[in-house]
Amino acid sequence: MKILSINTGSSSIKCTLYEMPQTKILMKGSIERIGQSPALISFDFGRTRRNLKRDVADYHQGVEFFLGMLTARETQVLPSTDQIDVVGHRVVHGGQKFSQAVLINDEVMSLIKEYAEFAPLHGSPNIAAIQSCQRLLPKSFNVAVFDTALYQAIPARAYLYGLPIEMCEKQGIRRYGFHGISHSYVAKEASRLIGKRLEELRIITCHLGSGASVTAFKHGKAVDTSMGFTPLEGVLMGTRPGDLDSGIIIYILKHLGLNAEQLEELLNKDSGLKGLCGKSDMRDIIYLTEQGDEKARDALDVFVYRIQKYIGAYAAVLGGIDAVVFTGGIGENSPVLRKKILDAFGYLDVKVHEEKNLSNEAFFSTKDSSVYAMTIPANEELAIACEAFKIVSKNQSLTET
Amino acid sequence: MKILSINTGSSSIKCTLYEMPQTKILMKGSIERIGQSPALISFDFGRTRRNLKRDVADYHQGVEFFLGMLTARETQVLPSTDQIDVVGHRVVHGGQKFSQAVLINDEVMSLIKEYAEFAPLHGSPNIAAIQSCQRLLPKSFNVAVFDTALYQAIPARAYLYGLPIEMCEKQGIRRYGFHGISHSYVAKEASRLIGKRLEELRIITCHLGSGASVTAFKHGKAVDTSMGFTPLEGVLMGTRPGDLDSGIIIYILKHLGLNAEQLEELLNKDSGLKGLCGKSDMRDIIYLTEQGDEKARDALDVFVYRIQKYIGAYAAVLGGIDAVVFTGGIGENSPVLRKKILDAFGYLDVKVHEEKNLSNEAFFSTKDSSVYAMTIPANEELAIACEAFKIVSKNQSLTET
Repeated sequence: MKILSINTGSSSIKCTLYEMPQTKILMKGSIERIGQSPALISFDFGRTRRNLKRDVADYHQGVEFFLGMLTARETQVLPSTDQIDVVGHRVVHGGQKFSQAVLINDEVMSLIKEYAEFAPLHGSPNIAAIQSCQRLLPKSFNVAVFDTALYQAIPARAYLYGLPIEMCEKQGIRRYGFHGISHSYVAKEASRLIGKRLEELRIITCHLGSGASVTAFKHGKAVDTSMGFTPLEGVLMGTRPGDLDSGIIIYILKHLGLNAEQLEELLNKDSGLKGLCGKSDMRDIIYLTEQGDEKARDALDVFVYRIQKYIGAYAAVLGGIDAVVFTGGIGENSPVLRKKILDAFGYLDVKVHEEKNLSNEAFFSTKDSSVYAMTIPANEELAIACEAFKIVSKNQSLTET
Repeated sequence: MKILSINTGSSSIKCTLYEMPQTKILMKGSIERIGQSPALISFDFGRTRRNLKRDVADYHQGVEFFLGMLTARETQVLPSTDQIDVVGHRVVHGGQKFSQAVLINDEVMSLIKEYAEFAPLHGSPNIAAIQSCQRLLPKSFNVAVFDTALYQAIPARAYLYGLPIEMCEKQGIRRYGFHGISHSYVAKEASRLIGKRLEELRIITCHLGSGASVTAFKHGKAVDTSMGFTPLEGVLMGTRPGDLDSGIIIYILKHLGLNAEQLEELLNKDSGLKGLCGKSDMRDIIYLTEQGDEKARDALDVFVYRIQKYIGAYAAVLGGIDAVVFTGGIGENSPVLRKKILDAFGYLDVKVHEEKNLSNEAFFSTKDSSVYAMTIPANEELAIACEAFKIVSKNQSLTET
């Protein structure tokens, strides 16, 4: 069965075509800087890798470009895109309705649109990609794999906010959590690499990219996560503030004359690392810090400090830690940050192995460390394909049509 | 020197007259339920204790009533209120201007008014009490003792929010922290009782009343605290939500049509424990939980859980804990809650002594516990009087007039 996995980010799209259940990659591509000029395109097919620069105006063009590459004379991955049986889409928000992946029909689509508003940076790209596939691949099934599904079972003490309960119930206000596909994947991978069942481990996973979140796993399940009702909450991010006193919002509304839309723009696009030092890319910030830039150093300090506080808080939630796992662009590639973050946890007997850390090894704690420190590359595309395969296999009647 | 200490809460006022520097209490009184009918008044003078119910419309009437009691025939504490040398006022917000107590002059008063807006529940009572004393005690000095002063020296990583730095600098947006008078007092008391210098201890203090906050002390100084720019942030409180995803605020603004003032009212008066279960008094909530009320149980769970997360987070900030101190109405009087909270910290070898906990003893950890668990009654009035005495003594020329 050929499954195309589509992972739309806030300005990027990653597509991988798998032969399932073998999980064999037939072609893999990514487009970054969608809507900016030029976009950065890269793709792999067989043993060939290509990088291109060209304008990609929107997500529809992105999907179209990628589908075109599959059948292009140059690649010849597929004779026709009709051969794609299933498309698995990462969908950022599944509300309280979806605690697992689901085949997309009209009803599902209208719920996805409804929930998209809670996470505007990712919601509209998700919808655009699904609609493009529905149009361009009329014979394929589309499956939504939700970033929130993992957290539908966290306990009330973790998902409730201190607001009037009637309002919360009526409006669906609760902690939803995001990045669930990624956290779930690396937690399972960590358990596999450690050689113990997930049920036996207390794991904290840190997905650190331009969006960032921390999740606590106990008895095989996610029990809490740093993102909340929306992806604005939690640790400091590239352009999002993370935790913020709600009194600040009231102050901004009353004194700076911003309306709700302007506020949303401010918090989604001009806050976080970018707000504190003008840069949202961690590589720039580390470089500037080394050059003595004080604002960059402060931004870096806040970034590290808030992750430390979440790890500490989740140690209390879990009653101790067996493993801390880093993933995402920053988590996988920044030994400096991993070291800074874990340096706070000597009291839990966390010991970093300097060299293994520098080479981004899967296990970078010392042998006598009481806690495994781990780096696991994110692979949301694979996780999406596996979930989609599971759902379609369950619906045998559908696959037989 | 006779110093009157005035501690205004969001619906209460506590006044104590001290002979300083002996810290001898000449009279002590409190009025609860100001503005409700009837208010509950209690006061002690010499060996006599009185409880009254009568209407007290506002803070001015409250101060007036108390001053009247000092010279009443029944008490005869003072022949005239002219003998009050100094009034020390608890002031909730000192902005970035005040890192210690200060004599109130016109300039100070106008800053207090400016900052009061950040903490509306306490700001106006503070101002009302100061103005009443200026009018009724024209010969006394008034000293402002700030709840925020303790936190003016916390590091940037703890006080910065992830917002545009220019906006924060211009508007004074940062973590201010509150309850500083109480946290500072119990941290010092803990150090005295333990018999080690504060500089040598890593202490987490939990002030749990209708307002609630958690503070971390390292090397003798506060390094972080749960309340932020306003007293809305942090742990769950009687009527305030504590930590809240800022995306929720945007959602409420966009979908429920509330304006900034209504939002402020909602978050200050109808959220927190009250929002979750209809009750803001922890005694009611514990009772209802025992009766099987699910909403009360959820509210209690959230309350406990969030304090656990802060203690865990601050353990990471401090690199371990030497003592956890409970104070405030709930902290001092609820062994059930102290036990629930500390039960999470077996991994740090915190061991609660059941009987000592039940009798609210100063040390309620077992002898072999690695961390001291402590209960220390709040005494903000004494702390205010000491601060006021220190300030007035420094300004010798003033006291000699």
